[in-house]
Amino acid sequence: MTQLQSFDVATSPETAAPRVAALRGWMEARDLDAFLVPRADRFQGEYVAPCDERLAWLTGFTGSAGFAVILRDRAAVFTDGRYTVQVRAQTDAALFETVLWPDTKLADWLREALPDGGRVGFDPWLHTPKELEPLAAVSNIETVPVPNGVDAVWTDRPAPPAAPARAWPERLAGRPHAEKRREIADAVARKARAFVTTQPDAVCWLLNLRGADIARTPIVQAAAIVHADASVDVVCDPAKLAPVAEHLGADVRAVAWDDLPALLAGLGPTGYDPATCPVALRDLIPEPVAMADPVALPKARKTAAEIAGTTEAHLRDAAAMCRFLRWLDEDRPEGATEIDVVHALEGFRRETDALHDIAFETIAGSGPNGAIVHYRVNEDTDRALDRDGVLLVDSGGQYEDGTTDVTRTIALGTLPAEAAHDATRVLQGLIALSRARFPHGVAGCHLDALARAPLWAEGRDYGHGTGHGVGVFLGVHEGPARISRVSDVPLEDGMILSIEPGYYREGHYGIRLENLAVVRPAPEGGREGDRPMLRFECLTWVPLDRRLVVADLLGPEERAWLDGYHAEVLAKVGPRVDGADRAWLERACAPL
Amino acid sequence: MTQLQSFDVATSPETAAPRVAALRGWMEARDLDAFLVPRADRFQGEYVAPCDERLAWLTGFTGSAGFAVILRDRAAVFTDGRYTVQVRAQTDAALFETVLWPDTKLADWLREALPDGGRVGFDPWLHTPKELEPLAAVSNIETVPVPNGVDAVWTDRPAPPAAPARAWPERLAGRPHAEKRREIADAVARKARAFVTTQPDAVCWLLNLRGADIARTPIVQAAAIVHADASVDVVCDPAKLAPVAEHLGADVRAVAWDDLPALLAGLGPTGYDPATCPVALRDLIPEPVAMADPVALPKARKTAAEIAGTTEAHLRDAAAMCRFLRWLDEDRPEGATEIDVVHALEGFRRETDALHDIAFETIAGSGPNGAIVHYRVNEDTDRALDRDGVLLVDSGGQYEDGTTDVTRTIALGTLPAEAAHDATRVLQGLIALSRARFPHGVAGCHLDALARAPLWAEGRDYGHGTGHGVGVFLGVHEGPARISRVSDVPLEDGMILSIEPGYYREGHYGIRLENLAVVRPAPEGGREGDRPMLRFECLTWVPLDRRLVVADLLGPEERAWLDGYHAEVLAKVGPRVDGADRAWLERACAPL
Repeated sequence: MTQLQSFDVATSPETAAPRVAALRGWMEARDLDAFLVPRADRFQGEYVAPCDERLAWLTGFTGSAGFAVILRDRAAVFTDGRYTVQVRAQTDAALFETVLWPDTKLADWLREALPDGGRVGFDPWLHTPKELEPLAAVSNIETVPVPNGVDAVWTDRPAPPAAPARAWPERLAGRPHAEKRREIADAVARKARAFVTTQPDAVCWLLNLRGADIARTPIVQAAAIVHADASVDVVCDPAKLAPVAEHLGADVRAVAWDDLPALLAGLGPTGYDPATCPVALRDLIPEPVAMADPVALPKARKTAAEIAGTTEAHLRDAAAMCRFLRWLDEDRPEGATEIDVVHALEGFRRETDALHDIAFETIAGSGPNGAIVHYRVNEDTDRALDRDGVLLVDSGGQYEDGTTDVTRTIALGTLPAEAAHDATRVLQGLIALSRARFPHGVAGCHLDALARAPLWAEGRDYGHGTGHGVGVFLGVHEGPARISRVSDVPLEDGMILSIEPGYYREGHYGIRLENLAVVRPAPEGGREGDRPMLRFECLTWVPLDRRLVVADLLGPEERAWLDGYHAEVLAKVGPRVDGADRAWLERACAPL
Repeated sequence: MTQLQSFDVATSPETAAPRVAALRGWMEARDLDAFLVPRADRFQGEYVAPCDERLAWLTGFTGSAGFAVILRDRAAVFTDGRYTVQVRAQTDAALFETVLWPDTKLADWLREALPDGGRVGFDPWLHTPKELEPLAAVSNIETVPVPNGVDAVWTDRPAPPAAPARAWPERLAGRPHAEKRREIADAVARKARAFVTTQPDAVCWLLNLRGADIARTPIVQAAAIVHADASVDVVCDPAKLAPVAEHLGADVRAVAWDDLPALLAGLGPTGYDPATCPVALRDLIPEPVAMADPVALPKARKTAAEIAGTTEAHLRDAAAMCRFLRWLDEDRPEGATEIDVVHALEGFRRETDALHDIAFETIAGSGPNGAIVHYRVNEDTDRALDRDGVLLVDSGGQYEDGTTDVTRTIALGTLPAEAAHDATRVLQGLIALSRARFPHGVAGCHLDALARAPLWAEGRDYGHGTGHGVGVFLGVHEGPARISRVSDVPLEDGMILSIEPGYYREGHYGIRLENLAVVRPAPEGGREGDRPMLRFECLTWVPLDRRLVVADLLGPEERAWLDGYHAEVLAKVGPRVDGADRAWLERACAPL
């Protein structure tokens, strides 16, 4: 296995000019005044295959969120606040304006930038109905579905991924796919004759499949039609499904994308999710019925087998993390940099002999780089660790039995004044949610403040959600539940979520602590009248750096939680490490 | 001034039979199969005048929420879980079924109870469009607006209240009514030519008026039409406004209810609030525009003068509360009962010489009575205080400069095992919100869990919201912001809210602690990048019983808050009491 994470600077601003010129030629031939270039494929996922890296190819910008708008004589890259520095560094300023999004909305920008009757071309496979809605409200422009202009001028565009699918064992899934198909079909039947999902992780969950079409997430890039009779049409290159024909059985059919129009034309009322379904696909449905994806909630409620599997994956990953943390404390070479840290951590994970992939590009932010929330180190930004300072490491692994995602902040030498104080506030947020119990019906929007209150009390906050759903050997970011001010999906037994408060002091340091946890029924209170409660059962067992804890700030129950957590780390992970690692772990897990 | 709170058992089950018979005769003459009898007047307020006590007159049930449905041969009283015991005690079981509401919905009940084409009579002045919406969806019944049948058979029905209005000084209101009218008119003008509000507290706030039409809330029972030109028509018996003609000036006109139809007929698009406007009034508007009451938010944002006034009212009230608490500890007679407690507390408040009214019927719940959330003592339920136990007292005062609402739970003798533990959990909830800071945009639904988390952690909860808005010499329950899981109105500078977590152990004891607080900007954090925060500034300065605090359960910051709170109580209220009261206060405010 070669190193998974790469630090190459893969694009350069100079390549953009001739490519944009070629695209403008294509636009002119079609009488288009604008063309939209999103960072999206037809599956609207977080990661895209090389053939779908149109935004990076055209503009040089490699961030995970953003889009470009090419006009005849102007061009702009829209990104959110996380990427404003990066987009300026990666793109040709003579060619591209940078627009802060969503502060500036695309519809408003186009309204001002285009003449009356301006024609805006878009690839209808890359945009959803929900996304295009605001553009329809702009009276002076016309949106025009067209074949993709970037594809027309990108002569050496890579081929689409064609990795073979494989069966994910029922031993790990906990349910046969026939049972899942029946459950979803019953939900679909209440509103339509069929449902078409374009979410590859939904397809993989439904059919107990995994794949290797893209990096970091073990999905098969495919859509699916779930029929009311519980049969399923999987839409992808049928060759990808050949190895799993027996696993899928006769009720699951492979359908090529080219055959999809004819298939949809013959169906009755068919459901689709306006937030994820491409406009082009929705337009192929004769009787479209907008509805939420019926797979989302069942997928989020993990089975006992999935919980058992991911529990084991987390312990395996914790042992690797502990070996990494000892290396960091005791063995890292003088002058080690962020890239060295990422290399070392990936190495320890690979030494488990069970690592399928990393779950995402490791974030290793030393000093001020830690305060950049979505920082990814590359050869240009790589920074030596401080002798005295704070290092933030957010990483995860994809194992056959589970997906991990863990963040630790580590003290290096003497700490900056206030860093331990701030880290203790973040820790108090982690503890508050980790100890929380809550009744049924409570959603992430109700719990988010528990994690923020210790920071809020001092006038501080963090600009990201407190937690996201996580799959089992599937997406490390998975809906529908989240822990954030706007998430009203009630938390349910079996959901896996991250708990990850943070604090980012710009120009100084970043602190984040992240554990994954599964929502489970809490033990009963034991007194008459007590109510059934849910709680977060921890999955992540990696020491929290006690050098960053100001014990006097903690209450007795917070101290008890921290000592109890470390005792459990030692009991669970201790048997999985030995020698110097074991000795380090014992010290790291000592009571406060 | 005579004693304000009464403990008489004012109704009896025996009176219902002839009254219901008379009503059924009236129904038969109008070919009605059902008639609805809500506990409501046309103002949809919490308190109603004696002439509007139709539900109590007809059924005997005196609870503050509920309604009766009279059919030709059946009758039912609908109430929520707080009142199921009371409704059975107060009504004739041979005559009335008891229906648990909202578990059973009126529409569903009528659908089953009535024949096809059943005619349901209702008084359109007592129901809102929002309330009747579900009935319109029942296909087998017909809703028929009729004059009120209870009024037709209630021969000695009291006259409507006719107390004269009086001006509330601008010194206390902080703004002239002309300025308020201009602000509301501008908001109305964005959507309509006028807005009609039927909320008396909105009318009183808008025009700096107070009245005495009903008990406990110093309102003038009146509706008002706010025109886009900032003039206002006040709809009530014009005689009530005669004393304030000069205060109101030429731009505020008195209009009798009988003249309202002609007035509305001449207006253009007119706004109304579907949640509070009577159906009859909405139907008088030629071009009705549904919108939220534009007065609600400006009324909730208290002026500096209102905050200063209510601060003084709270200190005055706190001195009375402290004298009461000392009496309870040191001077209460052997065998004192809940009614004695209510008498004594009201006496101390009246001795301020500033009490206009109590803010609501005092709740004094001894032992198991404390566990009944909406308990009001009367001659039948009165219970002697336990020698060893817990007493819950929830009370408030209406003063010219402010409205108070305070709950304390007091230890009597030796405590039941666990009571102090439970009370400490409730205290931790109070402290969590009292210490909380939060950014702009945060609503009650985001903060509610902070107060519950200490109880949730042990499998416990309380079945009411954590806090409600409070007026200034106006309603002790005031919208639109609340602290509850469903309240999404962002908290804003100047809003006054209660913070009142509790725990109710059925058959044993009840615990509730309540302070009022005003939302204000928090002091700045002082570090670059810190964000502006809001916080609750306490208004209520009454000792929290330290005998109910298990100090070992508190964290250092919780202990510091409690000691700091008591130091401030002593500093603020100490100068207002003397002798034995002062000595008691010093002991009550000692550090933990």
